[in-house]
Amino acid sequence: MDKSYTAALIVIGNEILSGRTQDKNINYIANKMVDHGIALVDVRIIPDVEEDIIATVRALKDKVTYLFTTGGIGPTHDDITSENVAKALDIPLEKNEQAYEMLETFYGKDAFTPPRQKMAYLPRGAELIPNPISTAPGFISENVYVLAGVPSIMQAMIEHVVCIIEGGDVVLSKTVSSSFPETVLAEELSRIQECYKGQVEIGSYPYFKDGGSGVNIVLRSSDEAVLDRVVLEVEYLISSRNASVLTLI
Amino acid sequence: MDKSYTAALIVIGNEILSGRTQDKNINYIANKMVDHGIALVDVRIIPDVEEDIIATVRALKDKVTYLFTTGGIGPTHDDITSENVAKALDIPLEKNEQAYEMLETFYGKDAFTPPRQKMAYLPRGAELIPNPISTAPGFISENVYVLAGVPSIMQAMIEHVVCIIEGGDVVLSKTVSSSFPETVLAEELSRIQECYKGQVEIGSYPYFKDGGSGVNIVLRSSDEAVLDRVVLEVEYLISSRNASVLTLI
Repeated sequence: MDKSYTAALIVIGNEILSGRTQDKNINYIANKMVDHGIALVDVRIIPDVEEDIIATVRALKDKVTYLFTTGGIGPTHDDITSENVAKALDIPLEKNEQAYEMLETFYGKDAFTPPRQKMAYLPRGAELIPNPISTAPGFISENVYVLAGVPSIMQAMIEHVVCIIEGGDVVLSKTVSSSFPETVLAEELSRIQECYKGQVEIGSYPYFKDGGSGVNIVLRSSDEAVLDRVVLEVEYLISSRNASVLTLI
Repeated sequence: MDKSYTAALIVIGNEILSGRTQDKNINYIANKMVDHGIALVDVRIIPDVEEDIIATVRALKDKVTYLFTTGGIGPTHDDITSENVAKALDIPLEKNEQAYEMLETFYGKDAFTPPRQKMAYLPRGAELIPNPISTAPGFISENVYVLAGVPSIMQAMIEHVVCIIEGGDVVLSKTVSSSFPETVLAEELSRIQECYKGQVEIGSYPYFKDGGSGVNIVLRSSDEAVLDRVVLEVEYLISSRNASVLTLI
């Protein structure tokens, strides 16, 4: 499996840690990464605290190909992402002329107040990520991709980003679903996983809902032929025990 | 604000990182922590990989009062949480007699196969967390609380846990909502935050939906009287500009 392109995500947001807001960005970004052959390997949710942002950016930026952040790029006192990404990268924060002009045009000269101007202060040399909804841009600085926290804006920004970054082989996924309990299949699944180690990744996810229970066996590989062979093996494992089986692509 | 009880959460799950599954546990646990006066300060989503589990448990366990994990305590090859929490804590993994008996009774002696037995192997001295749905228990080892990943089971387990752990003063939260853009309020909000620093935490969250936009200003404090005073200040800030305002408790 091609694991040469990796990503990590830092969700900067007290509102997620306090439970007030259900995060919607992690799953969206995870799916975008899969679609572009990039393995998301680490996600962290941290508070709007200077030291936490700096330490987390520094801990992750050399670990992955692409480091994403969401949240904290607006005009208010709790929007401290840009300045602390700059600190983490030891790059000065300065007025970005392109962002400044865009924002000044959007708000009008008279209404372009200091809090609005603040959104144009970015790490020196940052490349802008357009924001088609409320203008205030995200940005790219080294391998750090700073995105908005508002889901609709983040989604527009990540569309732009995946167009300009490189990915590897896309990992394909198939799910074999059965009402069989996973405990019955565990030993043979383990044998199949051992046999295809490094080629196919097998995950086993039991479910319990509406009075019923069963298991979803998720098979992931960038090699379609091998994936299909393993799907057949797992289907046979279940059907040979006279249980129903359903495979989803 | 009482910050003396803190928690961190490690979500162990390839299925979350691959985007296949939308996590439902983080928000649930975040809300339980708030209700019990515990500040959730760090959440990490990591893959089902031995080294990652060990390193993350070690990195977080001394940083917080309570460290929770979700996922990876079932019978299959990808369920590796218990053994790696044991390794992270330098405690031997061994057969837990109580868990073994419970599981043997549940499955029946003849059907109590090695994969099912595996779920009874826990760090020495672990205290069990009951699982009313599928029997396989979670456990407590030092300050690490190991919970199931299946949401319905996790929820039953956390109910048990919050009954037996201590929390601090509950942080109250009120939200002042307006169709006003946050950029207009930013300067004065910043002044109010500065004035009540350490007493009230103010978050500003813009929204853009269904053609409309506005801001939710979230105020959090464990002191109700101070909270109410700041809510009045923020309401006045908005209504004095002839904008509509709605406060939610």
